[in-house]
Amino acid sequence: MKIIVDAMGGDKGPAEVVKGTIDAVKDYGVEVIIVGKEDIIENELKNYDYPKNKIETINAEDIILNEDDPAIAIRRKKDSSMVVGLKALADGMGDGFISAGSTGALLAGGIFIVKRIKGIERAALSTVYPTTKGISLLLDAGANVDCKPEYLNQFGIMGSVYMEKVIGVKSPKVGLVNIGVEKGKGNLLTKETYDLLENTNINFIGNVEARDIPTGAVDVIVCDGFVGNIVLKLTEGMAISMFSSLKEVFMKNTKSKIGAFLLKPELKVFKGKMDYREYGGAPLLGTKKPIVKAHGSSDAYAIKNGIRQLIAFIEKNVINIIEDNINVIE
Amino acid sequence: MKIIVDAMGGDKGPAEVVKGTIDAVKDYGVEVIIVGKEDIIENELKNYDYPKNKIETINAEDIILNEDDPAIAIRRKKDSSMVVGLKALADGMGDGFISAGSTGALLAGGIFIVKRIKGIERAALSTVYPTTKGISLLLDAGANVDCKPEYLNQFGIMGSVYMEKVIGVKSPKVGLVNIGVEKGKGNLLTKETYDLLENTNINFIGNVEARDIPTGAVDVIVCDGFVGNIVLKLTEGMAISMFSSLKEVFMKNTKSKIGAFLLKPELKVFKGKMDYREYGGAPLLGTKKPIVKAHGSSDAYAIKNGIRQLIAFIEKNVINIIEDNINVIE
Repeated sequence: MKIIVDAMGGDKGPAEVVKGTIDAVKDYGVEVIIVGKEDIIENELKNYDYPKNKIETINAEDIILNEDDPAIAIRRKKDSSMVVGLKALADGMGDGFISAGSTGALLAGGIFIVKRIKGIERAALSTVYPTTKGISLLLDAGANVDCKPEYLNQFGIMGSVYMEKVIGVKSPKVGLVNIGVEKGKGNLLTKETYDLLENTNINFIGNVEARDIPTGAVDVIVCDGFVGNIVLKLTEGMAISMFSSLKEVFMKNTKSKIGAFLLKPELKVFKGKMDYREYGGAPLLGTKKPIVKAHGSSDAYAIKNGIRQLIAFIEKNVINIIEDNINVIE
Repeated sequence: MKIIVDAMGGDKGPAEVVKGTIDAVKDYGVEVIIVGKEDIIENELKNYDYPKNKIETINAEDIILNEDDPAIAIRRKKDSSMVVGLKALADGMGDGFISAGSTGALLAGGIFIVKRIKGIERAALSTVYPTTKGISLLLDAGANVDCKPEYLNQFGIMGSVYMEKVIGVKSPKVGLVNIGVEKGKGNLLTKETYDLLENTNINFIGNVEARDIPTGAVDVIVCDGFVGNIVLKLTEGMAISMFSSLKEVFMKNTKSKIGAFLLKPELKVFKGKMDYREYGGAPLLGTKKPIVKAHGSSDAYAIKNGIRQLIAFIEKNVINIIEDNINVIE
């Protein structure tokens, strides 16, 4: 197995990506191709001891920036690390690709360069959602803001396969984000999607209200990319605003300061549970080869976890299983 | 000024509604008509000392239940407290109506019995959203799950008028819930809505990401009823799940228990800030007369606050101002 890594994308620069990649090579024994400015990458690699035969590099002079228009960048920046890496993936030089770069560009590149699985109408960006119980998989996380019922239906199927095979949840509960639990609730999109999901052979448990998402009521959270974005960003905003309110509570007076001090170790554990780095990356689902988007602010640890996830994505034949399930449905 | 109160709707029954109404009569000097089963209402009234000339009752034998289909209930349950109350409002017997009953029925009744303001395409249910800064007004909170850009545009205008006149925020900042702050971001609905809101004379500050809703980045949060429901329920779910996680943190060991004990008074204040009861009710915006929906689980205190809000809704001529602004736009 060989993994292709985009060295240039993340906010923290190639140093963290290279370090995380080396850690993954050592721990998981995987072979990698690192794509990006070769002099920078070689310079980073020099700092470590690693099995030289397992890491090669491909030079790419350009970088796709978050400010770039995704579709245009993919077409024009032909010598960017992302385009070169995705082409290497499409050409069979590796079995999977991971990047911490622009989400939009990765999605556009996945669709235009690696191409969609036959029968898949739209590729979805999924993301791991930390709950009080563990983790759920949410898709679409923002790739497709205007959806048809059939897209959401396929998101449900793909999410179910990924959650079962890669994350290891047996018969994952799939829920459709909606304004009420009863069948018949919702807008035009969710009402029609319900009918489709009901007729799949995945474990569709019906609608899930937003209130029940944080407690992990379902393993796979199905929604369009607009709603997905709202759910993810509101979750983040609520966590931030509640922690900042708590901080104010803690600093109120001497008594509360002492209280906060006594709680510090346990609060740290609690905050750690909400740490995105534990969960690696967000798989792009629906392309012909496995692609994982690592968080933009990934450090070496997050990159390593993303690679671990990508390895499982490849090993478990997720794409073949999706292909089979989609064909069964149509 | 005379307010019409639905005695029968709330989860807590007529006792709390009657008590809250009496408190409002005493504190605000308002006259009221209480609608519902007269024997029950009279029985409650007997427990209190109040200005007899300010409270009258109208008998209504039936009750609309939360399980009832809203539109059907409004048409068939002609002797329900909600229908009788709304008819009294439409007939000019009072200046405003408040109910803690079925939201859907109140909305349907508002539209069918009280009717929409000329030029208003859809009535919106708005709700007060507690933020770390204070409060925002969110609309639509769930009445219209499939919206056209023009509806959202009118929601923005109505919300702005209400927030300025009733809540007292000068030139309220109006934001469109979207997946990015830049113009051009979003789905078809929000892209088109942006263009409309830009051409109003309200203080439209552009898109607001869900992440920035809890911190009060905008005073009026504009979205369709589907997204509004997701925002409200996820906010609730996140608050519940974070408080329950915190509780676990507090109970972890002796040290953390002592810490939690020391923090107790300040935590109570913090929780109180998130208390819906402080904020009274959710105005229905777009009907010809003021209607306020009190929370289903309203106690006397919440009912009293809802009446205070309804009084401001009437006194500040919100409906006339909306009429003027809508006519300007079209």
